[in-house]
Amino acid sequence: MQEQKNIALVGSGLVGSLLALYLKKAGHMVTVFDRRPDVRKVEFSGRSINLAMSNRGWKALGMVGIEEEIRKLALPLNKRAMHVNNKPLYFQKYGKEGEAIFSISRGVLNRKMIDLAENAGVKFRFEEKVWDIDMPEARLYTGETEKSVWKEYNFDLIFGADGAFSRIRHKMQRQSRFNYSQHFIDVGYKELIIPANEDGSHKLDNASFHIWPRGKFMLIAMPNLDGSFTCTLFMPFEGEISFESITTEEKADKFFERFFPDIKAEISNLKRDFFKNPTSAMVTIKCFPWTFNDKIALVGDSAHAIVPFYGQGMNAGFEDISVLFEKMNQHQDNWEKIFQEYQMERKPNADAIAELSYQNFIEMSRKTADPDFLLRKKIEKRFEEQHPESWVPLYSRVTFSDRPYAEALAIGERQGKIMDEVMKTDDISKKWDQPEIEEKILKLLSVK
Amino acid sequence: MQEQKNIALVGSGLVGSLLALYLKKAGHMVTVFDRRPDVRKVEFSGRSINLAMSNRGWKALGMVGIEEEIRKLALPLNKRAMHVNNKPLYFQKYGKEGEAIFSISRGVLNRKMIDLAENAGVKFRFEEKVWDIDMPEARLYTGETEKSVWKEYNFDLIFGADGAFSRIRHKMQRQSRFNYSQHFIDVGYKELIIPANEDGSHKLDNASFHIWPRGKFMLIAMPNLDGSFTCTLFMPFEGEISFESITTEEKADKFFERFFPDIKAEISNLKRDFFKNPTSAMVTIKCFPWTFNDKIALVGDSAHAIVPFYGQGMNAGFEDISVLFEKMNQHQDNWEKIFQEYQMERKPNADAIAELSYQNFIEMSRKTADPDFLLRKKIEKRFEEQHPESWVPLYSRVTFSDRPYAEALAIGERQGKIMDEVMKTDDISKKWDQPEIEEKILKLLSVK
Repeated sequence: MQEQKNIALVGSGLVGSLLALYLKKAGHMVTVFDRRPDVRKVEFSGRSINLAMSNRGWKALGMVGIEEEIRKLALPLNKRAMHVNNKPLYFQKYGKEGEAIFSISRGVLNRKMIDLAENAGVKFRFEEKVWDIDMPEARLYTGETEKSVWKEYNFDLIFGADGAFSRIRHKMQRQSRFNYSQHFIDVGYKELIIPANEDGSHKLDNASFHIWPRGKFMLIAMPNLDGSFTCTLFMPFEGEISFESITTEEKADKFFERFFPDIKAEISNLKRDFFKNPTSAMVTIKCFPWTFNDKIALVGDSAHAIVPFYGQGMNAGFEDISVLFEKMNQHQDNWEKIFQEYQMERKPNADAIAELSYQNFIEMSRKTADPDFLLRKKIEKRFEEQHPESWVPLYSRVTFSDRPYAEALAIGERQGKIMDEVMKTDDISKKWDQPEIEEKILKLLSVK
Repeated sequence: MQEQKNIALVGSGLVGSLLALYLKKAGHMVTVFDRRPDVRKVEFSGRSINLAMSNRGWKALGMVGIEEEIRKLALPLNKRAMHVNNKPLYFQKYGKEGEAIFSISRGVLNRKMIDLAENAGVKFRFEEKVWDIDMPEARLYTGETEKSVWKEYNFDLIFGADGAFSRIRHKMQRQSRFNYSQHFIDVGYKELIIPANEDGSHKLDNASFHIWPRGKFMLIAMPNLDGSFTCTLFMPFEGEISFESITTEEKADKFFERFFPDIKAEISNLKRDFFKNPTSAMVTIKCFPWTFNDKIALVGDSAHAIVPFYGQGMNAGFEDISVLFEKMNQHQDNWEKIFQEYQMERKPNADAIAELSYQNFIEMSRKTADPDFLLRKKIEKRFEEQHPESWVPLYSRVTFSDRPYAEALAIGERQGKIMDEVMKTDDISKKWDQPEIEEKILKLLSVK
């Protein structure tokens, strides 16, 4: 059992509320500060992408005993549903029988997590803005504005779970020898809604992650429990086909007519939502170190925000917490050691999932509609079925495993090179299911 | 003639005071804020590396009519003096006859630049700390502390010339879609001094840039007008041979005895200075955009801090100003266009000199003592003399030219590949001056 500490946590988002629950259950005093109002009391903003909970997320929830509760809020998706223009709808299984990702609304999940943490005894201070911290003293300053009179709090430890635009990290960034980068991609996103049928059922298959790949842009849709779908349109900010170029309701209408005819009628209030909902930016954030002495640590997006194209942002943040908890059990009251090992273990994995998420953006929008890419996937799939022990696909390593992301990236790169070789085979599109191809892969795999 | 603007400049360093002079001479009202005291009234800190003014720097000074004044403060260095242990001192010419870089003390130059700007009518507000700006309104807030009552100033334009840890950029960084990175290298530096002889003469050759390459660390020395040398020791922060490992005067003594026996006696107060002077960090900073509408622009280190190993930090900052001035002449009162073109032209060049500076760190500390590297340089030198029109070495393109850094980087990479091929020649160390080698280079150069 650890000595009881008085711990502050900045940010009541998903990772913040999960960590709060862990710390409270470990016997600590926990206060969570959030500059925003209690998410349970306000309408959730129209700028969220539905979450895809997978193995790492479930594991972290399971270790703190709330997996079953959260499962009730989630819908399993075991495949992609591909909506390619002028082609019939087709499906791609995500993994093996029984493997699925789980669609959850961010708002629904966040509210539940805060309930659970609060019931366990975590204290929440909403609408209290943290403006500064004293790192060596673990002191925290809050106030109405940056310039108003501040209130001072003393803690033993402070965790920054305050997201991509973290105030805590912003303070750490002013240290010498603190490495930091924020890189925005030129693509933005906008939320749209497909409402439920009148009887409450879903308008599209509700066990699928729906994708409309269109080259430089794409639409996705994930089901909610109430029969609706949360859709996200990803598109460049500027250029010929871009958010910037769609300036009138008429243009929005034509855009959907041309590129999403099969779904246009289903998107309710398309034109209203298109202009009402904000166009949001996506950023990759990297930094190091994530901790300061035995006083301060960053978790989740504040340490490693990633683009959402692998559906791993929340899962990676939750895994931070389960790893941190392992280190707490191992090193008990030696918080400096806990923090050191936590950051050394997590940093390369955070970098790896950042890279994979960026790569998957390319894959989802372009390659999923490309015949060569589909053939490649077919060959991989066949070989995987023939030799399940020697070929676990990258997507499964990331999504249905808790092995390190860095390992998945490394093995994925090796598999990619092998498939590059295989695809060079003459007449590959005819021979793809012949023993010759199986042997070629086996041979390439045997080269160390 | 441009319409007169009321312009604020944050930072009275080298780039800030040069820009102030340009703007004043162009007819604007110019106020320079600096949080530090007037550098003319305080002792200059023991953490500076001597400056090496080269072509781009002189050009920017010349365009505003102060080149001759500054030349008086500078000592020309036309070669490197290599101090390799157990080898006689040897020299490497920097360029062609008459080409040199110019050693200037940062403190001496900065004081002179502020004098010149002040005499031209620029207003300086020292020890006035800028804490915030309103970007769309070009408003600026100063005060004793971040929390004290602030004074508000309204300007037409604000320039951030406030260095690597720029407050202005810090504010811009909070914008969505602002890309930013700060990357520290694991090597730090410390200033040491070789005083003049009693008669005021230099203890080492004063027309050389002195280097003691020692693998993972190195010492450099550059002459000052007063007969002294400013030395800089570059060394890893941590590890077997590192700043961290030298904890006592005895260890410092042994370290210099072992690695710098030829110079140890000359460094005055070695042990005192070693522990008195700070160990400073080095950072590469990249960001984009550099400007905001027609209101705000970053110049110099605030936009593109680089590691000092090409001696181009100040030169690149000065070139920002000469380019900005060209754009001012071209677009007159269209400041938005001036800023746009300025940042589009400068950004790729700033990235290129950042890359070259980082590469030169490797070259200076390791390769300058490596026989293969020296042979390579000898071959390049010979070919350059035979075909001066087709082989301008990278160092000269960066240092003795005002062609874009990005072009120098690209051509340098091509030359590097050609020399890689040449060095693969059998018995190259015997044949290096044979016609065969000359022909090989000519042939490789002819492949487009």
